[in-house]
Amino acid sequence: MKIVVQPLTAPAFAPFGDVIDAIGAYDKLINQGLCERHHDLAKLDFGVESGGRAGVSVFKAQALSLPYELELMERHPDGTQCFMPMTEHPFLVVVAPDIGATPGQPIAFLTAPGQGINFHCGTWHGVLTPLHAPGLFAVIDRIGPTANLEEHWFETPYTIIPD
Amino acid sequence: MKIVVQPLTAPAFAPFGDVIDAIGAYDKLINQGLCERHHDLAKLDFGVESGGRAGVSVFKAQALSLPYELELMERHPDGTQCFMPMTEHPFLVVVAPDIGATPGQPIAFLTAPGQGINFHCGTWHGVLTPLHAPGLFAVIDRIGPTANLEEHWFETPYTIIPD
Repeated sequence: MKIVVQPLTAPAFAPFGDVIDAIGAYDKLINQGLCERHHDLAKLDFGVESGGRAGVSVFKAQALSLPYELELMERHPDGTQCFMPMTEHPFLVVVAPDIGATPGQPIAFLTAPGQGINFHCGTWHGVLTPLHAPGLFAVIDRIGPTANLEEHWFETPYTIIPD
Repeated sequence: MKIVVQPLTAPAFAPFGDVIDAIGAYDKLINQGLCERHHDLAKLDFGVESGGRAGVSVFKAQALSLPYELELMERHPDGTQCFMPMTEHPFLVVVAPDIGATPGQPIAFLTAPGQGINFHCGTWHGVLTPLHAPGLFAVIDRIGPTANLEEHWFETPYTIIPD
């Protein structure tokens, strides 16, 4: 089955997580008036009650191109996972609703340059899929003692195609 | 007084904070072998005991050029502050040792492309100083009820010059 990529918007993404960008109005002007602060844009949860804490990591992923065969989705039940691109390139964000503990039909979003995202706890998502090298991301997620990972392999992969 | 910019290295920056990048060896290969995870690279502290928590914000700062007049330094006693560039451009990082609750002689670092930094609690630092537009950064810092800000204005500004 084919899935057409759609532009990432906060309302469309709301069931899955947060869109994080400096595109709208800023909250505060700081640093002698030279810097916009777009403040506290993600609902973070690091599962402190199960021994988790926040960590900052860097992911370096191989770039891929469309069409893309979506074979695998995963989710992290014990913590949110935030991806902030360290380049100005858009990237692909694939999510799916949870249907009885497996992913339902996936939805594929393309970010605008300068947009990051935060997956809420338990959101089914595809692996990190940059479309341009270097696929470099700052990742703010849970560091903790639980596995915090469920995977689902599709019997028949989906094909994600450009708009 | 003039201060010459030097390349950012982890050992030189260690008294002030963490250098965060994917330049060295990775910790784990994830996502079907297609993604390097450089894991948990910053010592984070959000001052939970004084009501703080982690937040992700986006800063959009005006780009400047060298020579740069350093008039002001600031520090955040109650939390760490992590800056991850959302572009591939280097940026300027100015820090100073604490000498009796005021900044001593500043040190100016230039990041390599793909490097971010994390200021430890109480590190004196200059305001955000990108050298290229857009000056876009993901910022992971303390969201909390305290002011968490001290500023120091120099009677005579320092001049930061290229190598």
